[in-house]
Amino acid sequence: MVGGMVSTNCSGTNAFRYGTMKDWVINLTVVLADGSVLKTRRRPRKNSAGYNLTSLFVGAEGTLGIVTEITLKLAVVPQDTSVAVISFPSIDEAAKAATKLIRSGIQLGALEFMDEVQMQVINRHGSEAVRRTAWDESPTLFLKFSGTTDAIKGDISRVKGIVQPFQPRKIFFARDKQEEADLWAARKEALWTMTSIKPEGYSMWSTDVAVPISRLAEIINRSKEDSSKLGLFASVIGHVGDGNFHQAVMYDAKNEQHQRSVSQCVHDMMSRALEMEGTVSGEHAIGIGKKDCLVDELGSEAIDFMKTLKQAVDPKWIMNPGKVFDLPAGSKAVAAK
Amino acid sequence: MVGGMVSTNCSGTNAFRYGTMKDWVINLTVVLADGSVLKTRRRPRKNSAGYNLTSLFVGAEGTLGIVTEITLKLAVVPQDTSVAVISFPSIDEAAKAATKLIRSGIQLGALEFMDEVQMQVINRHGSEAVRRTAWDESPTLFLKFSGTTDAIKGDISRVKGIVQPFQPRKIFFARDKQEEADLWAARKEALWTMTSIKPEGYSMWSTDVAVPISRLAEIINRSKEDSSKLGLFASVIGHVGDGNFHQAVMYDAKNEQHQRSVSQCVHDMMSRALEMEGTVSGEHAIGIGKKDCLVDELGSEAIDFMKTLKQAVDPKWIMNPGKVFDLPAGSKAVAAK
Repeated sequence: MVGGMVSTNCSGTNAFRYGTMKDWVINLTVVLADGSVLKTRRRPRKNSAGYNLTSLFVGAEGTLGIVTEITLKLAVVPQDTSVAVISFPSIDEAAKAATKLIRSGIQLGALEFMDEVQMQVINRHGSEAVRRTAWDESPTLFLKFSGTTDAIKGDISRVKGIVQPFQPRKIFFARDKQEEADLWAARKEALWTMTSIKPEGYSMWSTDVAVPISRLAEIINRSKEDSSKLGLFASVIGHVGDGNFHQAVMYDAKNEQHQRSVSQCVHDMMSRALEMEGTVSGEHAIGIGKKDCLVDELGSEAIDFMKTLKQAVDPKWIMNPGKVFDLPAGSKAVAAK
Repeated sequence: MVGGMVSTNCSGTNAFRYGTMKDWVINLTVVLADGSVLKTRRRPRKNSAGYNLTSLFVGAEGTLGIVTEITLKLAVVPQDTSVAVISFPSIDEAAKAATKLIRSGIQLGALEFMDEVQMQVINRHGSEAVRRTAWDESPTLFLKFSGTTDAIKGDISRVKGIVQPFQPRKIFFARDKQEEADLWAARKEALWTMTSIKPEGYSMWSTDVAVPISRLAEIINRSKEDSSKLGLFASVIGHVGDGNFHQAVMYDAKNEQHQRSVSQCVHDMMSRALEMEGTVSGEHAIGIGKKDCLVDELGSEAIDFMKTLKQAVDPKWIMNPGKVFDLPAGSKAVAAK
């Protein structure tokens, strides 16, 4: 829902071209802890009047106030779109090709990555539309083109040249709207195909981190080695254009050893992201699960500053208590679940 | 300087395509009022970990802390650019054409407006390069194209069709890089040509407001009538793609009647922007001169919330005191000039 998207500053495949939620909110109406109601801005697209409260509430996870109205900016629908899918012999080659594509100046609408495990799952368990394509089960980039029809034609021919040095294995360019939908459906169905093969009684832990794009191949490779060493079945999907990726790990929630392994795996991924100057949360905020990591990521000065803001506007800590930060010692508020 | 750009969340002609300063700052290092130092974020382009302190400090005009380090995102230089200049019989027609261009989905790099007064000044007082073009002295749109060479060709032919219903008077499309530079130079020199014709002893009051794009023609027309009725010489330049415009008004700073007139003129322009759900500051923040209007724009709840944040992190009001808000009654801080 839009409210959740605002409160977590979420984003997805189109963020590469359009940015994240914070970039599309013009103003918010917010009910504060003391019951007063404010509106953060008026209607213009551009504004530099006073503190940017809009961006302070976006991503604050409801801890500074309850958002009751949201005014969004609209984007013009591009005249045309198209899709290409390109597989590579390794994650390194795919990441290098992605970097070259980003630097080329081609205005891609999205630039996504799926690893060989995810491609295998798609090949075997995708919908009928998805299985019309004989997918190559190796690290794969999904490109969305958007713009005028003429511009897209030019972009496609440039892309062919740009990826050539990275030993592409298979290249699919959509020849019509049906093929475009079929190709992109593989990306859309990624999570659902994983859910559909999850054994009875198993759970799936899906988490994301983001790193500078130059470190993306390295962290994906190391995270995959890690989950594989721990004997866990996991796939990787990446918003590679933003240096952001998700690992979905399956585990038996009733098996203690499994539980420890998956926790370890997720924890190590976050530590590794921090070592690479990354973030423990690219697009799903902090909630309860990542509170400890937030301190590791930003340091006590930034956390103390955030808490000072929180304390000033919600002295009883009644707004979504226990999210983002622990309640202060002695607080009478009850943590939300 | 970059520091000033960050602290005022400033922007200019390229904001239509690229957004404002807040969209390009990845993290900030800030010295707080108590002497502690924080870093707002790490390096990834995308991040949803904790409160968005980056956007809180951007545009805070140094009132929440002193920014000492800034990490910026870079944009890829487009493969090619070009420029077109189109004049119209009235501001209404120019604004309607602009709206149609925005909604067409063509990815313009910039979409600027100059009124007939500014075009006259450019024609007579521009540099040699600018005077190579015989400008039409009527309301004029300046378009910057950016993208691949092929895409730009397609965009230019679409633009010709889009503006046709609005009775364009003169259309210049740059045929080579020299013409592109010459045409855009007229926009770049706008402010300097105004300064160069300012009579000895006169001052120029340049201010900006922003409104929803649908109201832009109306507010420009009314502001021009207003300054003209008051007998003031004024030109209008607009970042029309963002609903944002500047009026530059000349006045004799030693003449009290002139001073009253120009104050009235600027004050009325801001009231009018607020009536149209606009903002008193599109891109130059609040400073000292617009403090009163900020309250009118946002209401006491939003201002009180901002002051609560300020008070919590700078209890002695020592950070750029007197900017954005007045000092609290009884404060020992001395207002900055």
